Amino acid sequence: MPEPVRHAYVSGAGMTPFGRHPQRSLTGLGSMACLEALDDAGLAPADVQAAYCGSAMAALVQGESGLGQSVLWELGIHGIPVVNVENACATGATALHLAWRDVAWGVRDVVLAVGVDKAVMPKGSVLKAGTTQLEAQLGDVFPGLFALIAQKHMQAYGTTLRQMARVSVKNHDHGALNPLAQFNKRVTIEQVLESPMIAEPLTLFSCCPNSDGAAAAVICSERWLRDTRRDRVRIAASVLTSGDYDPMRDLTFWNSESRAVQQAYEASGLGPGDLDLVEVHDAFTISEILHCEAIGLCEPGGGGPLVESGATTLGGRIPVNPSGGLQARGHPPAASGLAQIFEIAVQLRGEAGPRQIAGARVGLAQIMGGSKGNDAQACAVHILVNDRLP
Amino acid sequence: MPEPVRHAYVSGAGMTPFGRHPQRSLTGLGSMACLEALDDAGLAPADVQAAYCGSAMAALVQGESGLGQSVLWELGIHGIPVVNVENACATGATALHLAWRDVAWGVRDVVLAVGVDKAVMPKGSVLKAGTTQLEAQLGDVFPGLFALIAQKHMQAYGTTLRQMARVSVKNHDHGALNPLAQFNKRVTIEQVLESPMIAEPLTLFSCCPNSDGAAAAVICSERWLRDTRRDRVRIAASVLTSGDYDPMRDLTFWNSESRAVQQAYEASGLGPGDLDLVEVHDAFTISEILHCEAIGLCEPGGGGPLVESGATTLGGRIPVNPSGGLQARGHPPAASGLAQIFEIAVQLRGEAGPRQIAGARVGLAQIMGGSKGNDAQACAVHILVNDRLP
Repeated sequence: MPEPVRHAYVSGAGMTPFGRHPQRSLTGLGSMACLEALDDAGLAPADVQAAYCGSAMAALVQGESGLGQSVLWELGIHGIPVVNVENACATGATALHLAWRDVAWGVRDVVLAVGVDKAVMPKGSVLKAGTTQLEAQLGDVFPGLFALIAQKHMQAYGTTLRQMARVSVKNHDHGALNPLAQFNKRVTIEQVLESPMIAEPLTLFSCCPNSDGAAAAVICSERWLRDTRRDRVRIAASVLTSGDYDPMRDLTFWNSESRAVQQAYEASGLGPGDLDLVEVHDAFTISEILHCEAIGLCEPGGGGPLVESGATTLGGRIPVNPSGGLQARGHPPAASGLAQIFEIAVQLRGEAGPRQIAGARVGLAQIMGGSKGNDAQACAVHILVNDRLP
Repeated sequence: MPEPVRHAYVSGAGMTPFGRHPQRSLTGLGSMACLEALDDAGLAPADVQAAYCGSAMAALVQGESGLGQSVLWELGIHGIPVVNVENACATGATALHLAWRDVAWGVRDVVLAVGVDKAVMPKGSVLKAGTTQLEAQLGDVFPGLFALIAQKHMQAYGTTLRQMARVSVKNHDHGALNPLAQFNKRVTIEQVLESPMIAEPLTLFSCCPNSDGAAAAVICSERWLRDTRRDRVRIAASVLTSGDYDPMRDLTFWNSESRAVQQAYEASGLGPGDLDLVEVHDAFTISEILHCEAIGLCEPGGGGPLVESGATTLGGRIPVNPSGGLQARGHPPAASGLAQIFEIAVQLRGEAGPRQIAGARVGLAQIMGGSKGNDAQACAVHILVNDRLP
């Protein structure tokens, strides 16, 4: 892909608390997140020139069409291009990628990206997202697939159950510092290991929850940055790709992720050593371990020892999922990608309160969606930089 | 919106026959249309650099997520950005708009847009697309809404039942010349008027069918045009907008459509007098009448006399829906916007056989999706030009 013609910034970010919102509609949640993002950006609804609204489950589960238009209507935004997008768990990151592209190529100056979902799911409806009908019938739904991945990683690299459990413990520790997280309660390694078995070796506390919630970001060009005193959060790389669909692939990595990470490093001129924080798609504990390896925080196979060493805990060398991640912050699929951006923006601006990473300058967000032929359907990687810091 | 940096072309278009395809999946239909479009473009699946896949009903009705990736997998296309989009009946045009934007702003050189739907609908599931829950509960579903529009147009301008019926007769006449149309049978004014009443004054033959089908287009930059001898179909304007949501609006026009048409004329430097053919969203007979007025083929209120005069029939001054339109070609919602592009591309290249419009140089496609607050949720207008003709 050629270089974009100009910089694009996350000038505002907002999210609802994640968890259960039985009293709020998708439209209500989405508009709440958008209003917060606009307020954070110092911009008015009338400033928005285009919008991408992601929902992985609105149509699938709630029979709702045109959600983006409904959300914007609540805000009094009308007469602009609005596109509803879906890419399973990468839906919010897809909305962000399109918004970034509009701004970075000079098509628009102020673009809104929002992701919203509710966890109202008929049995089996979402777990099979993206697999072929045959794969789903054979039991290749997400917990089963990630159980296989965990088994393979344990066999290949000696990764232990306690190392995987450490991911959950760490992310719940982080979530306890995040007032917007679904779970603010810490868990112990024993609690993770002894919670009900979902798919061997993944226990209940090894899996993220299904949640209600929304997150949004305002992407704009330099001249639309309103608070000139505030730290600026620039999008140094935005990569979206789809899987390679290789049924013979080694289960311990995803081709799509390796490629997306590499492209993001090339686009930004940065590498794993430059990162101050990382938000990854810890749908299962084993997922975070694989993502740390893919991002280059350690060697292939080193993800278990990495989390065990404390390096990825707040206060460690490179905090991973300081927000609590999907495990503790919760996982409304389309919102998670933008909640990662919310966390990184807040961290880069030094506004993360008790979970602040001192002097954070560079953050990376990684998320993937769906599964097909042993690769992700979609994988997105974003790198954000505070370009006021040296 | 600023000017794009370069030209983008429809280098290939393809569509399946529209109608009933009980033996084909969404994935099968989508990949068929894509293969035809690629073949038409003289390009290989491996040339595709990004793809937008639209379906208005895949998730809503069939619980299918990640359809675009499934379609591309069938073609052996992998590792590229794939975005699934939804904008009700404007879904296919939305996919096209995003593909055009990628090429016209230099982000990508070869982008695929595909729209696919099947008419497998539980009762009431799609008709309420885009209305608020309250509106749907009160009966403000599409046939009811367009019946009100028809009544208002009759009252305001004296539009007659026979004039509206002429739209259906004309489009069925056109459809009889289109081997890919769902209906190849002509109807008479009497048959239209005497068919079962759906919502006064709209009878069964005043409404488009719900159909299965897919359509696709390959959008590329100039240097990727493969057959240099062939006529070139350039996208002179691509406009996507959303509604203004004005409950007090006069029911005889849509703000979103007026604005989209005006923007498309400005972007292309063309006007209604330059058009050689038009494809509009004739979901109901009255719709085509309103769209002809919005596009400027006649004065406001003149749509009834216009169709009655024969000016919009093949062989007339400005043929409207030479493909048969939604009324006869059929209406798989997400495919219709790209089927319009297929028709215009074929016409501009002089390959439309018995329905060819001699010397056609400029075509306009208009489509809208959903309804909210008395405007469309989404409205798209595309103008295509054969830039080999003077």
